[in-house]
Amino acid sequence: MTPPRHNLRVDGSRLWATIHETAAFGGTPAGGINRLTLSREDGAVRDWFRDACLAAGLEVGTDALGTQFALRPGRDGARPPIAFGSHLDTQPTGGRFDGVLGVLAGLEVMRSLNDAGIETEAPLLLVNWTNEEGSRFAPAMMASAAHAGEFTTADILSRRDAAGISVAEALAEIGYAGEEPVGARAIGAFVELHIEQGPILEAEALTIGVVEGGQGIAWFDGTLTGFESHAGTTPMNRRRDALLGLAELALAAERIALAHAPSAVITIGEAVIAAPSRNVVPGTVRFTIDLRDPQAATLDAAEAELRAALGEIAGRRRLEAELTRIWRKAPVPFDPRLVDAVETAAGALGHPHRRIISGAGHDACNLAGIAPAAMIFVPCRDGISHNETESATPEDCTAGADVLLHTVLALANGPKSE
Amino acid sequence: MTPPRHNLRVDGSRLWATIHETAAFGGTPAGGINRLTLSREDGAVRDWFRDACLAAGLEVGTDALGTQFALRPGRDGARPPIAFGSHLDTQPTGGRFDGVLGVLAGLEVMRSLNDAGIETEAPLLLVNWTNEEGSRFAPAMMASAAHAGEFTTADILSRRDAAGISVAEALAEIGYAGEEPVGARAIGAFVELHIEQGPILEAEALTIGVVEGGQGIAWFDGTLTGFESHAGTTPMNRRRDALLGLAELALAAERIALAHAPSAVITIGEAVIAAPSRNVVPGTVRFTIDLRDPQAATLDAAEAELRAALGEIAGRRRLEAELTRIWRKAPVPFDPRLVDAVETAAGALGHPHRRIISGAGHDACNLAGIAPAAMIFVPCRDGISHNETESATPEDCTAGADVLLHTVLALANGPKSE
Repeated sequence: MTPPRHNLRVDGSRLWATIHETAAFGGTPAGGINRLTLSREDGAVRDWFRDACLAAGLEVGTDALGTQFALRPGRDGARPPIAFGSHLDTQPTGGRFDGVLGVLAGLEVMRSLNDAGIETEAPLLLVNWTNEEGSRFAPAMMASAAHAGEFTTADILSRRDAAGISVAEALAEIGYAGEEPVGARAIGAFVELHIEQGPILEAEALTIGVVEGGQGIAWFDGTLTGFESHAGTTPMNRRRDALLGLAELALAAERIALAHAPSAVITIGEAVIAAPSRNVVPGTVRFTIDLRDPQAATLDAAEAELRAALGEIAGRRRLEAELTRIWRKAPVPFDPRLVDAVETAAGALGHPHRRIISGAGHDACNLAGIAPAAMIFVPCRDGISHNETESATPEDCTAGADVLLHTVLALANGPKSE
Repeated sequence: MTPPRHNLRVDGSRLWATIHETAAFGGTPAGGINRLTLSREDGAVRDWFRDACLAAGLEVGTDALGTQFALRPGRDGARPPIAFGSHLDTQPTGGRFDGVLGVLAGLEVMRSLNDAGIETEAPLLLVNWTNEEGSRFAPAMMASAAHAGEFTTADILSRRDAAGISVAEALAEIGYAGEEPVGARAIGAFVELHIEQGPILEAEALTIGVVEGGQGIAWFDGTLTGFESHAGTTPMNRRRDALLGLAELALAAERIALAHAPSAVITIGEAVIAAPSRNVVPGTVRFTIDLRDPQAATLDAAEAELRAALGEIAGRRRLEAELTRIWRKAPVPFDPRLVDAVETAAGALGHPHRRIISGAGHDACNLAGIAPAAMIFVPCRDGISHNETESATPEDCTAGADVLLHTVLALANGPKSE
């Protein structure tokens, strides 16, 4: 077994150049990327990625949902590969780093190992998952979910975009309807490098987030119904103003989240007055609630507190209240051994780091259902993502790729998983 | 001079039958009326009204904006007429009483005086004002405003509806482009009977509202701007959530109104999140504020308090705040002598009554600018108006017409105005 080379580093300049080279596929005037999944631009970057992997000596394959795999054989072909990667599709006004960093840092890991002439025990597998973003086809993260058995391939192939084009048609159009059955590839572990898409690392001047897991999410649709009445003729004490009920609920939701600080977050992202008019007391308000926490018990407690607050407010203000939970996703804890491996690599490389929870969903959260998984975060400016102004520094991208490299090396050369 | 006949009463059954006879013009399946101003249905009810006035021996005229006048001569032709009336147009899903009651009770007053053979000193003038509602052409109350000199006739004639039809064209279409110059009729006083369109009289089990004036109104457009961010990745303490700012402002507005109880009312009737999404922290919220009070000083104080609250909230929550006053209408105090006359009539008739402020705008508020004016309110069920379910009892309508009758008699037979 080759001892890990602790002084090994990726070529940060090459990584940075690669990021900006591929940003031309779907590049926007504002400096972002518009590369919807399975679009012509996505086809172009896939071709580039395939060619780059082939040039790096990797064995390239594509599955029936278009997910691209690039294998670097190990000494022990019987061991399942250590996989890493992310996605090359973007939001319609996306940035240069979301997903892209994870795939291209993976390519840089392969190239750096080649340059150093290092062979690993387990094979390494670089993955570009189809349709992580979900902007064109629902659901988001569809290929990794199908890989993990959450959807059938036929189901996903039949999904259609707003123009009525199916996933199957879009794959055929760009030539990425692959031969491999979805989920056929054994995966020994999966590690995903990604920008944080949040403000914590930047605010704390840290370089690496050691991601412990993905939050649980509960989504609610709610309605508060009072009585629509004339803004001029209805005294304050006779009103049944639905907007004032929502105002109290929004502030209660904030208090409830803060009571479960620092992990819980609660957001009312949509609030619509039915038949709004500047001189009519709002009679009905429809709203959404997004509740997240890494602990299932906290999701339960916060939901109960939200319902209690809503009931109290509605009773006092003589409103009818409805709150329906339309979706709940359990928290995804990442594999402790992999999380430790990420933390060890960050520490060995001397990068300031902290453990962190992923607020957003990622392909790694789906993979966690079938294999040990973990993630590495690097900061992005102002926490902004899904935006053409998305930005990360070359130094942080390089640091993330170095942590990915050493995590992958430790896993591929470590003891076989049980 | 004929002494007032204190035992004189209108014919409540005839009034009620008339209300329901005219409700057929634009009557809706739900029992309401759809009689937009200058529509075919409005033309039909105008024809009916003209014929009914002619049958009652009145001298009928129409001005250049279609307002119908029906004169009952008095003994002293040199005195300006005591005018009363309201409007026969309705909202697109309007009720049977808003406006209609004031015109048809005025007709009933004329008929009752005819039946009793009573001649008044001053002439009496029944008016059906064009376009009180404003649903088809803006502004609302346009004919009475033009009569009071707030708009030129040419200006109003050029206003167009959503289909591009001008007031002039609509008048010609139904044959109501009259010969009389707008504002030419001298008016010695104006009294308008109307349903309250609010809940106060019903709640206090009173029959008559002695209206002291119309509220002042201030309208504002506002914006709160924070920062749009990911609902999953943005910790609560790093958010700049515009909706939470609005929530605090809405509750502050309620407190400010209550601090000026019972007269002040403040309503946030429109609130729109820009680019709403259930998993995005709201970055921008646009809203309206409707502030009303009968006292100009209270409008000033409440506006200052609203601005202070908004500044405090925005500062604490790191939001940008804008608040622009887009309209202000000064309070309209009605003429004390006329208000006393209404109150005296209600008392003499034995109807339980209270002084009240009109929360909505009415033609009488425009007339107050050029003549002594006052209003009489009767209750409507649940305070509902501008709705097909609008409802008032025959007893209350009769009581209101009786108060109108005796108020008009007192004014027409009383001393000349100075």
